[in-house]
Amino acid sequence: MKKIVVIGGVAAGLKAAAKARRCDPKAHITVVEKGELISYGACGMPYYVAGDVDNIEQLMMTPAGAVRNPAFFKNVKDIEVKTKTLATKINRDRKTVTVKNLESGEETELPYDKLVIATGASPVKPPLPGIELANIFQMWHPNDAKAVREGLERGKFSRAVIIGAGLVGMEMAEALKMWEVDVAVVEMKEQVFPAFLDPEIAGAVEKYAQEKGIHIYTGEKVERFSGDGSVQEVVTDKRVLPADLVILAIGVRPNVELARDAGLELGVTGAIAVNEYMQTSDPDIYAGGDCVENTNIITGRKVYAPMGSTANKHGRVIGENLCGAKAKFRGVLNTVVVKVMDLNVGKVGLTERDAKELGYEYVTALIGGHDRPHYMPGAKLMSLKIIVDANTRRVLGAQAFGEAEIAKRIDVIATAITLGGTVDDLFDIDLGYAPPYSSPIDNVAVAANAVMNKLAGKLKGISPLEAKDKLNCEDIIFLDVRSPEECKQIRLANCKDIRYIPLGQLRKRLSELDKDKEIIAFCKISLRGYEAALILEGEGFDKVKVMEGGIIAWPFACEK
Amino acid sequence: MKKIVVIGGVAAGLKAAAKARRCDPKAHITVVEKGELISYGACGMPYYVAGDVDNIEQLMMTPAGAVRNPAFFKNVKDIEVKTKTLATKINRDRKTVTVKNLESGEETELPYDKLVIATGASPVKPPLPGIELANIFQMWHPNDAKAVREGLERGKFSRAVIIGAGLVGMEMAEALKMWEVDVAVVEMKEQVFPAFLDPEIAGAVEKYAQEKGIHIYTGEKVERFSGDGSVQEVVTDKRVLPADLVILAIGVRPNVELARDAGLELGVTGAIAVNEYMQTSDPDIYAGGDCVENTNIITGRKVYAPMGSTANKHGRVIGENLCGAKAKFRGVLNTVVVKVMDLNVGKVGLTERDAKELGYEYVTALIGGHDRPHYMPGAKLMSLKIIVDANTRRVLGAQAFGEAEIAKRIDVIATAITLGGTVDDLFDIDLGYAPPYSSPIDNVAVAANAVMNKLAGKLKGISPLEAKDKLNCEDIIFLDVRSPEECKQIRLANCKDIRYIPLGQLRKRLSELDKDKEIIAFCKISLRGYEAALILEGEGFDKVKVMEGGIIAWPFACEK
Repeated sequence: MKKIVVIGGVAAGLKAAAKARRCDPKAHITVVEKGELISYGACGMPYYVAGDVDNIEQLMMTPAGAVRNPAFFKNVKDIEVKTKTLATKINRDRKTVTVKNLESGEETELPYDKLVIATGASPVKPPLPGIELANIFQMWHPNDAKAVREGLERGKFSRAVIIGAGLVGMEMAEALKMWEVDVAVVEMKEQVFPAFLDPEIAGAVEKYAQEKGIHIYTGEKVERFSGDGSVQEVVTDKRVLPADLVILAIGVRPNVELARDAGLELGVTGAIAVNEYMQTSDPDIYAGGDCVENTNIITGRKVYAPMGSTANKHGRVIGENLCGAKAKFRGVLNTVVVKVMDLNVGKVGLTERDAKELGYEYVTALIGGHDRPHYMPGAKLMSLKIIVDANTRRVLGAQAFGEAEIAKRIDVIATAITLGGTVDDLFDIDLGYAPPYSSPIDNVAVAANAVMNKLAGKLKGISPLEAKDKLNCEDIIFLDVRSPEECKQIRLANCKDIRYIPLGQLRKRLSELDKDKEIIAFCKISLRGYEAALILEGEGFDKVKVMEGGIIAWPFACEK
Repeated sequence: MKKIVVIGGVAAGLKAAAKARRCDPKAHITVVEKGELISYGACGMPYYVAGDVDNIEQLMMTPAGAVRNPAFFKNVKDIEVKTKTLATKINRDRKTVTVKNLESGEETELPYDKLVIATGASPVKPPLPGIELANIFQMWHPNDAKAVREGLERGKFSRAVIIGAGLVGMEMAEALKMWEVDVAVVEMKEQVFPAFLDPEIAGAVEKYAQEKGIHIYTGEKVERFSGDGSVQEVVTDKRVLPADLVILAIGVRPNVELARDAGLELGVTGAIAVNEYMQTSDPDIYAGGDCVENTNIITGRKVYAPMGSTANKHGRVIGENLCGAKAKFRGVLNTVVVKVMDLNVGKVGLTERDAKELGYEYVTALIGGHDRPHYMPGAKLMSLKIIVDANTRRVLGAQAFGEAEIAKRIDVIATAITLGGTVDDLFDIDLGYAPPYSSPIDNVAVAANAVMNKLAGKLKGISPLEAKDKLNCEDIIFLDVRSPEECKQIRLANCKDIRYIPLGQLRKRLSELDKDKEIIAFCKISLRGYEAALILEGEGFDKVKVMEGGIIAWPFACEK
């Protein structure tokens, strides 16, 4: 009878065990987990803290309401799960794992034919003065979430500082705002979501969050925490922030000690190296989840990209291979979707920064538009940027934000990238159309269209970042072609020379514009801006550019 | 100066004109439209009738609030639009179109270098007795929508009969229910959405609509209408339905007379034949929108599939080619998304019926699940069926329904099919994951997984349709492995031999089941049903099948 031992009982480990059981009803399968809880939905913790989820136990239940505890795995899947059991050593010579019962202290050896390492990751805890003060939490274990929620329910917290403007940090910012806590986010890098957004997209997201009352301090480093027993102040290199709650969210590191001590290979990212079958350098030992590194599908490069979705796929592949299959894991696109208040943000594939660093010749487009026909109730705006290889026309990546439906567009582009799709393919796809869901020309097709126009030389765009540098220039006209009503509501700020000519009047008012000057045309989403550029070009203006994304994607100051 | 004439000013025609203008600032572009209105969002009419859209004019406006009338097209796009102008003849010999001003009766000839036919389609009006009675509407022109909405606002209508359970019919059923009108839908075919759903999926959709109070009579033919001036009764071959409002929604036919009279080729579907460049049999004449036939991307067959989204793509391709490009239109996947009350329904590619008729060897899977982690507020259930080529493993089609987010999954599968993706690709895609949007293993991956398991011989499924035929059989056990609480709420009806054994007790209660009998295991979504089958197979039961989709996809009677 085959003996399978799995180290780690959260996502990848239990998935591998369950899949192995489905493939082999007779194998003896043991899972050891150092904690008390298993198989919990860690990604749900911010929503538990926010109050969206009533009870932390829901994160450990099946949809039918059964608690995923050791008894459940025994009864349903015939898998033995040992909690509070720490794997201390892998003895590859005799194919055993030494485990220690954390309650009794007893040590035993579990023999294996096949071993799975799914030891996950641990949050980074910076060695700053005051880090051990009370009410400084890492949002990693359900106990953290419980403690924060209890404190919120008892009204203990009114000023929170979150360290790190990544996924956990920004999700927690939203969660805490739900309790009307004053929230500040401190990020060392110059932008929010530094790991996956280009700066102009991050700028727009940051602007939104600030408008919703989340204070964001980028390019700022936390130096220490102070307080009497519990935290009272966060001291950065620029200011002192009062705080009765601190959330540390500066990233995670893979738990590789066990693997490293056993002589298994680590990869360039520092995580455990695995091949396409999820095998470590020892073919009888598999590894998956947050402790391994992945391959980026586009570049073939190794990346550290811990995600619950990836961990589950790892588990399935490992489970099959434990039973003799040769299933492969293809890799990742570093896809991200995240909600910040009512803003949806998404990213897939390469950022523009990645594309530049990797030496691609690329074209980008940043477009705006409603996610449904504008006349439908609930139609919302989004901005979508796509990055395309200028030579092969293959789609390299996309980023999107807006209160609109973002995730669908990101998933469509993820699918296209996975299958090597070009920008032309993106335009061609027969996406589902009905007014409750989408416009006849979906935002994805609009973005593809814009790139195709650029590749054909029919659209000269300028990014908000470049446009900003020209705000103060002498010989540059910013041409806002929106209606007077729209201009009353919001306008670009700090323009040296801005003209307001509604698109419908442009053909008659050409004499107001100087052909010698560079003109940057725009509107709310820059579709009318594009029309304006075409009109001007048709009339012999040859220095016209369209400000991509329009006002809704403008990450800098506006007047109201 | 190039002269471009476009016949038809709704979707494809105006899109072609606008795109041509963008490519060629100097061309002389004229659009003739027989009606008074142009460029309206016809697909929005049910939502105007429902009251979701306040004002019918919104369907004719740009997102910025400009009315898309002839003045707008003149000022913004330098396109001349002649409304109330009927094209009566295409004179290919001298390259002119004879047009008639419907107000003055005056006839003129417009010369063209390139001509675009975008004459659209007309709703089918069956020659039934009483068809001319008042309050029998075809939901085709904004005037129809206005008349129905006005009647509803004045409380004129309390009992509506809709003829045809296709897209327009079911959207109008929802719209009228919003006004608390008693709604009956009569459909000649044996199911709702006969054009694009397999019968078991249609059955589940019909069951939902019936539960929401829409009376549906399938396999029933309307014979006549009766009433005194306005309609009072709809007489079918089975019953008499009282009605003060009738909506005819039995489909549309392409308007091809002008093209046919000019000697242009029609296709096998009866619509205008065009090549991949959207050219008719006369290379100077293009055609697009609801008057042409399309090519199905999977089969290469010609299909008649009028859709607003397709018409817009046609317009872009035509517009480019009018200016000398060689843009191609790839074809369609007959993608559909439609909302019926709170139910979302979608379809892409081939149905199982299509696959069978076309001689494919195929495998299907029908799975169920939440669209987000079950603990998230607003998580809803969906059922998803995919159809896969058993030899090439390529995805052929999908259908989905549920209150969950359907459109995203349909669009992902549409993208995969367009790019020739296999079921393995579907599993691999790095789809965006965060609890507000999706589960770590998205429904698409779950469905792919089920097909992969079937192809590997690890899952023996039985469709609800096949299972229904076995409800009364002697030697067949239906095994419901849900919890007692779930079984209290809803159960399959009319089972000869049904057993209730919660999954967690199954290993201990194996002796209650007879190995000689065929066992059909299921649960709410049949994930536990699958686990049950694996347990039984592991214990030597060799006649076990999983009822696909579980109770939520069961289209037949249930007990409550």
